[in-house]
Amino acid sequence: MNVLIVYAHPEPRSLNGALKDFAHDRLTQAGHTVRVSDLYAMNWKAVLDAQDAPGRDAAAPFNPSLESKHAFASGTQSADIEREQDKLRWADAVILQFPLWWFSMPAILKGWIERVYAYGFGYGVGEHSDRRWGSRYGEGTLAGKRAMLVVTTGGWESHYSARGVNGPIDDILFPIQHGVLYYPGFDVLPPFLVYRTGRMDEARFAATREALGERLDTLWSTAPIAFRPQNAGAYEIPALTLRDEIAPGSTGFAAHIEQAVTAGALSDA
Amino acid sequence: MNVLIVYAHPEPRSLNGALKDFAHDRLTQAGHTVRVSDLYAMNWKAVLDAQDAPGRDAAAPFNPSLESKHAFASGTQSADIEREQDKLRWADAVILQFPLWWFSMPAILKGWIERVYAYGFGYGVGEHSDRRWGSRYGEGTLAGKRAMLVVTTGGWESHYSARGVNGPIDDILFPIQHGVLYYPGFDVLPPFLVYRTGRMDEARFAATREALGERLDTLWSTAPIAFRPQNAGAYEIPALTLRDEIAPGSTGFAAHIEQAVTAGALSDA
Repeated sequence: MNVLIVYAHPEPRSLNGALKDFAHDRLTQAGHTVRVSDLYAMNWKAVLDAQDAPGRDAAAPFNPSLESKHAFASGTQSADIEREQDKLRWADAVILQFPLWWFSMPAILKGWIERVYAYGFGYGVGEHSDRRWGSRYGEGTLAGKRAMLVVTTGGWESHYSARGVNGPIDDILFPIQHGVLYYPGFDVLPPFLVYRTGRMDEARFAATREALGERLDTLWSTAPIAFRPQNAGAYEIPALTLRDEIAPGSTGFAAHIEQAVTAGALSDA
Repeated sequence: MNVLIVYAHPEPRSLNGALKDFAHDRLTQAGHTVRVSDLYAMNWKAVLDAQDAPGRDAAAPFNPSLESKHAFASGTQSADIEREQDKLRWADAVILQFPLWWFSMPAILKGWIERVYAYGFGYGVGEHSDRRWGSRYGEGTLAGKRAMLVVTTGGWESHYSARGVNGPIDDILFPIQHGVLYYPGFDVLPPFLVYRTGRMDEARFAATREALGERLDTLWSTAPIAFRPQNAGAYEIPALTLRDEIAPGSTGFAAHIEQAVTAGALSDA
């Protein structure tokens, strides 16, 4: 299988760098083909701007969405954007690896998303009607592929727990896992998390590698997060609110995940 | 009063540009002094990297946090970072204005946070002991100042409602409002939101300006979001989980906001 690692850390001689190298080698040894987009090493242009649509009328106001649509449709995008889109098409699985900075991805990776996810590629795909609202949230250009986050934090695991001061890590990552990955069609695996990176001795580093290795070995068999597809009946269209009979009374991010039915419990739908 | 608007949109002739100009003029006419950090116009360097610590040993591994700490403490930060820190010190209120791209701020603004919020300025402030865990979440360098988001979205309001497919806007913005603004001490006002920007005719634009004007007129009197201070007794230290008697049974982002006590209802604490 083909695996793309999109990696955002400024220092190769870092924990993140070591884990990226480990993942590359582990997947390669398992027979997979691995490509790495090392955004810092590539000097990736982080800022979406008018230069991303080189053929545009320079005198006209720059509308990011419409210019992206036109550049993608007419084959006039920046070459660096096209290369990354080709890597995504090539990949069977994509790993986004980054340190959590200010409760989100580093700017260089955010800018990779903004520029590579062109209108017609990452969004603006499919029909809008009274039955479908675009091919997104479970459908789209990247449907059938898998994605997983590998994220490090300086903070402690308890700080990111259900009642931790930073908020639960699942909620912090929801805008990325649901809004960036599930949106264009990825099946999103549970994230691989490394907390409290300031306290990483050799024994813990070995255990962390081992745990990451297990996740990489089961990349094709791990059950994805059960986000609800947008166009399969759970949502009213075009309001895109959960239908009354779906997870009645539930609000917030978790309502968009199908809950497993346990013995003796009622289904949520 | 002094107001800093940090603004991230690539096109001055846009809805965002018009709202930024309107805010500047409205505040100025009310007697305030307004400065604008127009990140695109400034060609703001979005990517945090080793160049941000010009005096460092170029042969040593780059540790973003430690290098930031050293550069801030020794006065050897990049000049562009220092200028923005000075603006934040000068301001009584800060407005972050941006279009919501992929459920977060544009990369150029994310990079402004990452670079300007140096160790010792935006984080790494105050003592860590068994009673306090740094001066953060309600305390810090920017305590006593107010902050507000002005955010536009292409999506509809219902898509961002309590059961909307994107997740509730309050939860999407929590990592910014709580994690980026409340963290270094800001009092955070409820956000000003403009949905469905593709359907903006002259009448709706006039109403939007009017609504924004009211929010600007009441910038000093609007009640902030009642985020719970970290070091005032609500959290166990150092686990930083809510104490059992605080919002018992509640989890998720909302548990970190004090709920108003309504007549006949029990306090949550």
